[in-house]
Amino acid sequence: METHIPAFVLLLALLIVAAKAGAWLSLRLHQPAILGELIAGLILGPSLLNVFSWPIFHHQGFQEMVLVFGELGVILLMGMAGLEIELEEFLKARRVALLAGTAGVVMPLLLGTLVAYPFHRDLPTSIYVGLVLSATSVSISAQTLLELGRLRSPEGIALLGAAVVDDILALLALAVFTGVVNPGGGAGGGVGGLAIAIVRMTLFLILAFLLARAVLPRMATWVQNQPVSEGLMALAFVAILALAGAAEELGGLAAITGAFLAGLGLGNHPARHTVFERLRPAAYGFFVPLFLVGVGLRADLRTMSLEGAVFTLLLIAVAILSKLIGCGVGAWLGGFRPLQAWRVGLGMISRGEVGLILASLGLSAGFLQPYEFVAVVAMVVATTLITPILLRWSFGPRSLQELHAARE
Amino acid sequence: METHIPAFVLLLALLIVAAKAGAWLSLRLHQPAILGELIAGLILGPSLLNVFSWPIFHHQGFQEMVLVFGELGVILLMGMAGLEIELEEFLKARRVALLAGTAGVVMPLLLGTLVAYPFHRDLPTSIYVGLVLSATSVSISAQTLLELGRLRSPEGIALLGAAVVDDILALLALAVFTGVVNPGGGAGGGVGGLAIAIVRMTLFLILAFLLARAVLPRMATWVQNQPVSEGLMALAFVAILALAGAAEELGGLAAITGAFLAGLGLGNHPARHTVFERLRPAAYGFFVPLFLVGVGLRADLRTMSLEGAVFTLLLIAVAILSKLIGCGVGAWLGGFRPLQAWRVGLGMISRGEVGLILASLGLSAGFLQPYEFVAVVAMVVATTLITPILLRWSFGPRSLQELHAARE
Repeated sequence: METHIPAFVLLLALLIVAAKAGAWLSLRLHQPAILGELIAGLILGPSLLNVFSWPIFHHQGFQEMVLVFGELGVILLMGMAGLEIELEEFLKARRVALLAGTAGVVMPLLLGTLVAYPFHRDLPTSIYVGLVLSATSVSISAQTLLELGRLRSPEGIALLGAAVVDDILALLALAVFTGVVNPGGGAGGGVGGLAIAIVRMTLFLILAFLLARAVLPRMATWVQNQPVSEGLMALAFVAILALAGAAEELGGLAAITGAFLAGLGLGNHPARHTVFERLRPAAYGFFVPLFLVGVGLRADLRTMSLEGAVFTLLLIAVAILSKLIGCGVGAWLGGFRPLQAWRVGLGMISRGEVGLILASLGLSAGFLQPYEFVAVVAMVVATTLITPILLRWSFGPRSLQELHAARE
Repeated sequence: METHIPAFVLLLALLIVAAKAGAWLSLRLHQPAILGELIAGLILGPSLLNVFSWPIFHHQGFQEMVLVFGELGVILLMGMAGLEIELEEFLKARRVALLAGTAGVVMPLLLGTLVAYPFHRDLPTSIYVGLVLSATSVSISAQTLLELGRLRSPEGIALLGAAVVDDILALLALAVFTGVVNPGGGAGGGVGGLAIAIVRMTLFLILAFLLARAVLPRMATWVQNQPVSEGLMALAFVAILALAGAAEELGGLAAITGAFLAGLGLGNHPARHTVFERLRPAAYGFFVPLFLVGVGLRADLRTMSLEGAVFTLLLIAVAILSKLIGCGVGAWLGGFRPLQAWRVGLGMISRGEVGLILASLGLSAGFLQPYEFVAVVAMVVATTLITPILLRWSFGPRSLQELHAARE
């Protein structure tokens, strides 16, 4: 690898060019930038050009490295989403977030289990398929709303709130599953292990939130007055990275939850807009394009058998409908108008890194067959492709003009 | 690795914190920030705390990944150095740069060979030690001068110019060495292969320079008017990465030479200062601290034997004196006053990534013994540690006060 750094650097340049060219073409065709970036990844991926098989890029570790850069993009994106949130508005939406998030986990869990059962021998592995479907990924919806200037609309705030609830519940469900099915592993197994996992998650969330909200702004003020170059930005990077890592390592939560908490904390400082603006170039000029192209790169559409294709199509349908119904009805029960509830449901459809992580875990533990893993990846790609289109469409034809107007 | 991303993200946060804490302490003690960042790396490295052996960070690929992030830091730093250069002033210094650069390669090559001969059996492997000593790394001197506000002084411009000459000559010397000693490898071997290598380097330099200077500003103007988010910054990242990769892959040059050329090209556009300012947060808040800590992390001072220690001390002494004499006399012959020539000589002392790459190649090819590889790493650390101190000292005690004044 060490001697292959020039080739890797060329690969990064190629992927960013592909992403931005895709985004440009997409915007020209009045589509969301994200769509073109994902399609650029699909074209460069194993389905077509298979960039990792080209002699210059055919080195061990390249695929993994691109994945790591993409993960950093996701983490930065969620940190920036946290920075943008007005917490007062966020707390206003907590009823909707709680209802939409909860129903949006229960529905995929139930429907996913039902769809998987005919393909499986037993209940536990069927439940695992439902579990994989339960974790949403709002980073793509968040970017779409950011582009539309709607991230701070009631729907946007409910979406981000519901995603936090969703994230916690999905990982709680994983803890329950692991505790019941595999009592030897995890934090001791059984009811005791389960209780420990829940206490640990809750404790981490409360402590990390209070710490981020109270301590990060003080640190930011202190660092601003020190002579260290880019001290404030280093603090922002460190806070986002550290809370992202700690969320998984200490809290048993997803990294993006921690990144979002760090953003919320830094958002409690007067320099929040400066920090956001100075994170933008690296995020949107470097890391995020690598994430979006990376999603496409990971999907090999050629490995599909007929049975696998049937399973995949069912999985995609259930993934879309279960979130739409679960989150939509939840948001509606939470007091949203039907159109608003519909938008929240649409925004929650896309699955992402948490789904892929759960699928990887399931593959290793034997809960998922290899072809089911490919199906999950296809489901992630499909929901990721469809969500920005549906979400943008739900905001009406005016949204694109507003977008252009906002940029001028 | 994939499932170890949270741990890796925590590692990045820890390394950035360590770097910035070291920088802060250094500045408090009226030392260059870099010194503290390198010492932070030494403390975290195998010599003391050995961070990569901690259970949480003890995963395959972590060391390599930190290296890649550091390399990106070096590449960004050189791209930014190119952006800062006024080409008119750069061309004004070409006589000094040519003389200092040439003498600064010939002297270490000669003295290095002489010192290595008693430890070696034959002339070729002794020459290789000289070769490893010949390639300078001005990124640390450039950062020191940037901090002092002296990067665009005559000394600074001569230094950057001499580094380009140095880089080319050192790699030409490597091509000659490979062509003569190992005629089977490379571009055909012998005089023919050597000629091809020289033509290739020259062609790449001329074409890349003209392309960067003529095409990049046009692309920047076009991209600025497109709706793609952070298009200009994506272009900057891509240009720096692509020319860095191409310099090695196509030109047989060092990556940093390509990055510097990309910076020079983008420097020919009115938005150059905007681009520089928007690269800063990611460079100094993320990538560059990882590079500087990474240098310290790679040095294990405990692996030294007595013979190795003698060789290391001799190597360090020769590394310092040969560059100081070669570049200093070269700059003086080029018309610099003795103090200016002295500063150029001091600024060229530090070795870095090119030296380490040459050492790795030599280790693989059997030109260097393992303990000599450690000696080269120690030489890189020693020259890197000593250069900013000497360079800063050569600008007098006023420099630190000027630095603080410039920051207020």
